Amino acid sequence: MIRFSTVVASLRTSEIRDLMGLAIRPDIISFAGGMPGNELFPVQEIDDIYAALSRDVKQTAFQYGPTTGYPPLLESLQDYLKSRGLPAGRNRLMITTGSLQAINILGKIFIDPGDLVVTENPCFIGAISAFNSYQGKLRGVDLDDDGIEVNALDGVLKQLHERPPKFVYLTPNFHNPAGTLYSNQRKYDVAEVLTKHNQLLIEDDAYGELYFDEEARKIVVPMKALYEEQLTICYTGTFSKILGPGFRLGWMLVPPEIFQKAELCKQSMDACSPNFTQVLANEFLRSGKIYPYLERLRKTYRQRKDLTVAAIREYFPKEVTWTEPRGGFYIWLKLPPQLDVIGVLKASVEKGAIFVIGRTFDPEGKDNGHLRLAYSNTTEDKIERGIQIIAESLKADMAASHRM
Amino acid sequence: MIRFSTVVASLRTSEIRDLMGLAIRPDIISFAGGMPGNELFPVQEIDDIYAALSRDVKQTAFQYGPTTGYPPLLESLQDYLKSRGLPAGRNRLMITTGSLQAINILGKIFIDPGDLVVTENPCFIGAISAFNSYQGKLRGVDLDDDGIEVNALDGVLKQLHERPPKFVYLTPNFHNPAGTLYSNQRKYDVAEVLTKHNQLLIEDDAYGELYFDEEARKIVVPMKALYEEQLTICYTGTFSKILGPGFRLGWMLVPPEIFQKAELCKQSMDACSPNFTQVLANEFLRSGKIYPYLERLRKTYRQRKDLTVAAIREYFPKEVTWTEPRGGFYIWLKLPPQLDVIGVLKASVEKGAIFVIGRTFDPEGKDNGHLRLAYSNTTEDKIERGIQIIAESLKADMAASHRM
Repeated sequence: MIRFSTVVASLRTSEIRDLMGLAIRPDIISFAGGMPGNELFPVQEIDDIYAALSRDVKQTAFQYGPTTGYPPLLESLQDYLKSRGLPAGRNRLMITTGSLQAINILGKIFIDPGDLVVTENPCFIGAISAFNSYQGKLRGVDLDDDGIEVNALDGVLKQLHERPPKFVYLTPNFHNPAGTLYSNQRKYDVAEVLTKHNQLLIEDDAYGELYFDEEARKIVVPMKALYEEQLTICYTGTFSKILGPGFRLGWMLVPPEIFQKAELCKQSMDACSPNFTQVLANEFLRSGKIYPYLERLRKTYRQRKDLTVAAIREYFPKEVTWTEPRGGFYIWLKLPPQLDVIGVLKASVEKGAIFVIGRTFDPEGKDNGHLRLAYSNTTEDKIERGIQIIAESLKADMAASHRM
Repeated sequence: MIRFSTVVASLRTSEIRDLMGLAIRPDIISFAGGMPGNELFPVQEIDDIYAALSRDVKQTAFQYGPTTGYPPLLESLQDYLKSRGLPAGRNRLMITTGSLQAINILGKIFIDPGDLVVTENPCFIGAISAFNSYQGKLRGVDLDDDGIEVNALDGVLKQLHERPPKFVYLTPNFHNPAGTLYSNQRKYDVAEVLTKHNQLLIEDDAYGELYFDEEARKIVVPMKALYEEQLTICYTGTFSKILGPGFRLGWMLVPPEIFQKAELCKQSMDACSPNFTQVLANEFLRSGKIYPYLERLRKTYRQRKDLTVAAIREYFPKEVTWTEPRGGFYIWLKLPPQLDVIGVLKASVEKGAIFVIGRTFDPEGKDNGHLRLAYSNTTEDKIERGIQIIAESLKADMAASHRM
């Protein structure tokens, strides 16, 4: 009686799923979830905003809204994005249910089963699963410290020129999981390569506001702001990291032709995003409460990054290599060869700390000898102890493999 | 550079879309949107709930939640559904972003391009667009006053036995747009036919709580509660009609095997539904505030239905036929042949009232000589005038077609 569709029949639950469920147990120090700090949310600000809403606006908050977003929020967000240099006038803005829905819709708009998509390797797990859900075939291109390896990208696009990928998906600002911030030069080089190959770009900018210093602030300019004239760019962003993921609000800024199709897709998915949280997000932007809040966030995340980096320097084996992030939530660590990362994960969990293994973020599902640490939701008092636990598990595994 | 996927390339915006945009203009009396009354939302109740939340729970409201739903809400909702006789223990419950997302996910789970799906004719527009978005081919079976025509359903399933439809999608309680409440006998007969053909049922119960009298209350028992042992039934419901669509919360109650696939689909769509509104919905159920609220809703919607029905009796031409609804939001009216319904719509809008033409709800996109009136969001003082306007437009068109 139950006959699943082809694409869904092939979906499998991850084998480390049960392990990852532990990431929310209060007795485990978690570097696993890519989530904001629980105690950092602007609860007081939203309390004040809610208390000041008129009855009329509250009624609107309870009602359906337009598929493309609550009009006052679209206006406030447009102003906000313009202030970051984005072409929010010529392009069209749509509110989505988290930026994952924006990425999913873009997947639906472009991917036929078997179509190729080029991503960074590693890649945001949500994008991997969204593109896979349309039976896209992912081809990953490695990152170095300045961004995606541009010669490798050029090579892949040349190799694929007879059946070019539908788009290239990149996260140039504080990549998840790699932490990478693309240099200005690299953004320029990538734009040149994409122009040469006439390739569509999906730019995911979930973390761009979370820079740690003035130098990084100058570099986080989106490619959408820099190369809009030259390339077709679908830009996605989110309130999850600058307000709260529980609001489920993201957006896409795209050319009108793509916007039309996206609206039809969203209509059939959830009709509209929550008006209730859109009303609150609008006031958070419009009142300017977001600006001091962002200052606070940058300071706190930087502090957590500093503590994590200091502990890694002190406790981790020298064979583990990594780059210090300049913003965002993540440190991406390369492990010595032959290390059993699932064994290390299990040992760490037993002793009370958890992280995510690198394979989770591999667009082709291969092992890549990495692990990801998220310091964003780990309070300052727990970071050192958590890193010690993971370091001990790493050292034990290395000693064991040495003996073999 | 822009190469759309096959399914999206074929999507077209409706030609009456701009007209429907008028449904929210304050100077137009709208019977168009299938939405709750703006002034009926439980604003005070939610204010009180929000004010009483602890800081801890508020922080949770801002954060990501599990893909399948905020655990306390799942528990409260399970109790609520059990009290309606639903098998919330043996089956599994998932919170979705509106029940449209539940319907969309079920479409994704079962439909391969070209697969057949049987629906009522007419059919909820959201389900039509969700199933079409997976390239399902819809086959509509007419409704009579007691529900789907059971002999016609049997005939269609017989005719399709070599390539049976993936599922049958029904709304037995206060159908949108037809307003129909299935009789007990009809539910029984439908269950027999589906069992004989070994067919999966998707039961959409968006309106079941909104009955207008004691007799109807006894009949709104979901098929999921009655025939769970005999059939495989995926049951969907929503907070949109019993709290507010702006919360974007619905649910599905499905067998474990289907639940697993649904969870993987939802993970790639929006990761989780808004925790912020789930926290509030949970307290609304758990505190029992929902029960007096539902009483109030039933009374008000019944009053609006009564006023609409009285005005139709007084002003509409006798050639227009319809059945008085016993719950829900809608009256579905059959027009005399040769009437130009788009012309009537345009004339009504010019004079200040709007409704939805029947073709919108035809699963095969054909004209069906009907129109839908939603009385749910039309305040008592406007109903008579609105019905008069539509009646005048109908009469003018009938007179004109007579003269030709």
